[in-house]
Amino acid sequence: MSKVEEKLQELGLTLPEPPAKGGAYAPVKQFGKGLYYVSGCGPSTDGSAITGKLGEDVTVEQGYAYAQGCMLNVLAVLKREIGDLDKVKNAVKVTCFVASTPDFYAQPQVANGGTELLMKVFGEEIGTPSRSAIGMSVLPGNMPVETEALFEVE
Amino acid sequence: MSKVEEKLQELGLTLPEPPAKGGAYAPVKQFGKGLYYVSGCGPSTDGSAITGKLGEDVTVEQGYAYAQGCMLNVLAVLKREIGDLDKVKNAVKVTCFVASTPDFYAQPQVANGGTELLMKVFGEEIGTPSRSAIGMSVLPGNMPVETEALFEVE
Amino acid sequence: MSKVEEKLQELGLTLPEPPAKGGAYAPVKQFGKGLYYVSGCGPSTDGSAITGKLGEDVTVEQGYAYAQGCMLNVLAVLKREIGDLDKVKNAVKVTCFVASTPDFYAQPQVANGGTELLMKVFGEEIGTPSRSAIGMSVLPGNMPVETEALFEVE
Repeated sequence: MSKVEEKLQELGLTLPEPPAKGGAYAPVKQFGKGLYYVSGCGPSTDGSAITGKLGEDVTVEQGYAYAQGCMLNVLAVLKREIGDLDKVKNAVKVTCFVASTPDFYAQPQVANGGTELLMKVFGEEIGTPSRSAIGMSVLPGNMPVETEALFEVE
Repeated sequence: MSKVEEKLQELGLTLPEPPAKGGAYAPVKQFGKGLYYVSGCGPSTDGSAITGKLGEDVTVEQGYAYAQGCMLNVLAVLKREIGDLDKVKNAVKVTCFVASTPDFYAQPQVANGGTELLMKVFGEEIGTPSRSAIGMSVLPGNMPVETEALFEVE
Repeated sequence: MSKVEEKLQELGLTLPEPPAKGGAYAPVKQFGKGLYYVSGCGPSTDGSAITGKLGEDVTVEQGYAYAQGCMLNVLAVLKREIGDLDKVKNAVKVTCFVASTPDFYAQPQVANGGTELLMKVFGEEIGTPSRSAIGMSVLPGNMPVETEALFEVE
């Protein structure tokens, strides 16, 4: 088992099956020298539908957990592509899209659910990405959170 | 004629004139080794105004066609910069911004209009990008769809 | 003093202190060969709270000034990381997130406040980035504008 997956296990988490694609795109695309762009992933790690908006019917605590679920999906997609998550040498950039009513302002607290997971499993130097956390009108399938990420791999 | 433009012709499509700039930015910027970021392009391929939102006054079918128009503009901008679209070796990442009412959930079906075009003209290996499709409150000039893209070129 | 900071001074501007982080992320992350992704920065250059939405309680003129403030923060974050802004050889990509009511359509005019600053201080060749300017439902802390940027550095 890779060190990253050992860390996940210590946190009581396991990598899900990579989510099914929702359209005409690649779940992850390699480019340049060891760069991998992972497409926007939703929060469900078991195929169930998770819906709703922050500020309406999803709490910040739920949003945090959903952002963690999005990141688990991102990591599952990346692992399928590169074979071993211990080869990740840099979590470069995360964009966390948060479906929000116009008066919900805590997108960063939601997004932390994903980026704190990266920091725990990869360590702070590798795992702390640049990030934008932004409030969307709505997301595909009425998902509350969606996350895309850019990684650099050995 | 390039192979990519032959494919477009077979589909009954032609590259438009690259759209006029709408502000202080470069339509495309080269960086790294053969990487090109194309700025957000709207759907109009003839200079006419296309306006509206998905979930309100634009149907999914129209949105699909508009996303295809956005991608034709992206390709027109890229061709002007690199001279020949056959030099594209990787459609890396597409972000499809869909102006959406808060209860419109089919952003991926709209975004497919752009990414399916890439797959048809470049082939699946080169032309299938990573992607995020997200619902925006509103877009410049009340456009229904806007698309930005990252390419790798020989 | 660097040439870039001399230019800022000529414009009557100074680099602020880099803004405090608002969550679990890196203000900027280096990757590839000299690439730096700067995380989403808000408009306040003195720690005060700036709130509101375009189309409601923030004018286009204010939005332009706020986008300039976002970019000053982006440059402050980048300078702390690389030491000297004269080492910037390419402003690659800017995404300007504009908190907008659904009937506000002038995101590009707002975003120009940031990208025109880049063009003035770095010159047109280096300083003109690719860009997307998009209308968000809402931004963290009810900020009117947020900007992320990708730079290439010597």
